[in-house]
Amino acid sequence: MEEVKLLGALSSPYAHRVIWALKLKGIKYEYVEEDIYNKSDMLLKYNPVHKKVPVLVHGGKPISESAVILEYIEETWPHNPLLPDDPHERAVARFWVKFGEDSFLCCYYFSFIHACESFKSISFNNNLVGFFVTTGEQQVKATKEVKEILGILEEHGLGEKKFFGGNNIGLADLAFGWIACLLETMEEAAGVKVLEANSFPRLQEWIKNFNEIPAIKESLHDRNELLTHFKRRREHFVSSAAS
Amino acid sequence: MEEVKLLGALSSPYAHRVIWALKLKGIKYEYVEEDIYNKSDMLLKYNPVHKKVPVLVHGGKPISESAVILEYIEETWPHNPLLPDDPHERAVARFWVKFGEDSFLCCYYFSFIHACESFKSISFNNNLVGFFVTTGEQQVKATKEVKEILGILEEHGLGEKKFFGGNNIGLADLAFGWIACLLETMEEAAGVKVLEANSFPRLQEWIKNFNEIPAIKESLHDRNELLTHFKRRREHFVSSAAS
Repeated sequence: MEEVKLLGALSSPYAHRVIWALKLKGIKYEYVEEDIYNKSDMLLKYNPVHKKVPVLVHGGKPISESAVILEYIEETWPHNPLLPDDPHERAVARFWVKFGEDSFLCCYYFSFIHACESFKSISFNNNLVGFFVTTGEQQVKATKEVKEILGILEEHGLGEKKFFGGNNIGLADLAFGWIACLLETMEEAAGVKVLEANSFPRLQEWIKNFNEIPAIKESLHDRNELLTHFKRRREHFVSSAAS
Repeated sequence: MEEVKLLGALSSPYAHRVIWALKLKGIKYEYVEEDIYNKSDMLLKYNPVHKKVPVLVHGGKPISESAVILEYIEETWPHNPLLPDDPHERAVARFWVKFGEDSFLCCYYFSFIHACESFKSISFNNNLVGFFVTTGEQQVKATKEVKEILGILEEHGLGEKKFFGGNNIGLADLAFGWIACLLETMEEAAGVKVLEANSFPRLQEWIKNFNEIPAIKESLHDRNELLTHFKRRREHFVSSAAS
């Protein structure tokens, strides 16, 4: 098999999606941690447009954008499918993949600038809306907004199902995996609680189901390392907004 | 064949993408123009999460999000393919589909709020960054930014090819179709020039190639109607930003 390499970053939910997909498919790969404060020449070469992780390199050819990488993985290694067969069900799964992406952006808004790094002259400094990057009253508002997003998942996304697609884990679950694996640490770093123990029972149940999957469990990062990282990110954002 | 219905709106580049794909595949469909100022019950029923166009309804089942609809069309009616066969080339095409979406958002930023209508408490009123929704100095800056985006297409997207994917029109071309079919009218409504006659020669050539495709040509909207619509939209945005 041709060599598979993944350029990722500890706190990137987009990189995590790809790691989970590769693990669920049992694909061997080399993982390269990128320093997002000091990007490698390899990253700049392989993703010259956005200069961001994740990038999957398969047989020397790079693929960027996590949703695009997920489709590539599914097409290249079709065993243990992560999309259903039925075209309409596939469309529903892809709808939630997109929503997973947008909803994360709304929590951690600064990511949008990374997404648009090539358009660096756009400054959002006065408009950090995510709970992760705000303080005071603005953060209270942002926290309320994230709860609205979680409410949509609870009502329209999950229903009575074990996973977003039904009985088996699929692409939509991976897109929301950040809620299961990163949100709690983000909350702690930001000093707020979004997903309270007694709220969103279906989502709570889904988090349990998601984290019980062996491929997910074995790829969880060390909590303390993650917390240190998120605290540093938050400090960086909050001080840029203030300056 | 099961009934195909499309809920769209005159000025939506996302609805246009879907119209073009259906025409290129020769699929018969019923088109329903939505009034975005007064959304129909049908739209609210079929897209309860985002409440926005386009929505494709096939055999009574709705599909939202233009990129998702395009994949659905390609899977359901595989003739006249809009994606290449090779998995890596498919990934490259999907990368540009995503970029087409993001780049439009950067011109016409308010769309992002429509995208996030469910999170309506998020207010971007002080932060309209697209050239279409700004005035004065802010608009000068925004115009420069759009040129940077067009530069990326010129350098990384098109190269020496006739279309984004090579010799034939494909999904990535549809994603950038708004540049060929809407940008000039948007410029006129906003009183700026982004794509000047002597700039971006590859992109200019691509616009010609794109607009020569019969399925595209026959679905172009009346220019005056479009201009009236865009002027009204711009007025609405600019006055909301000022209030």
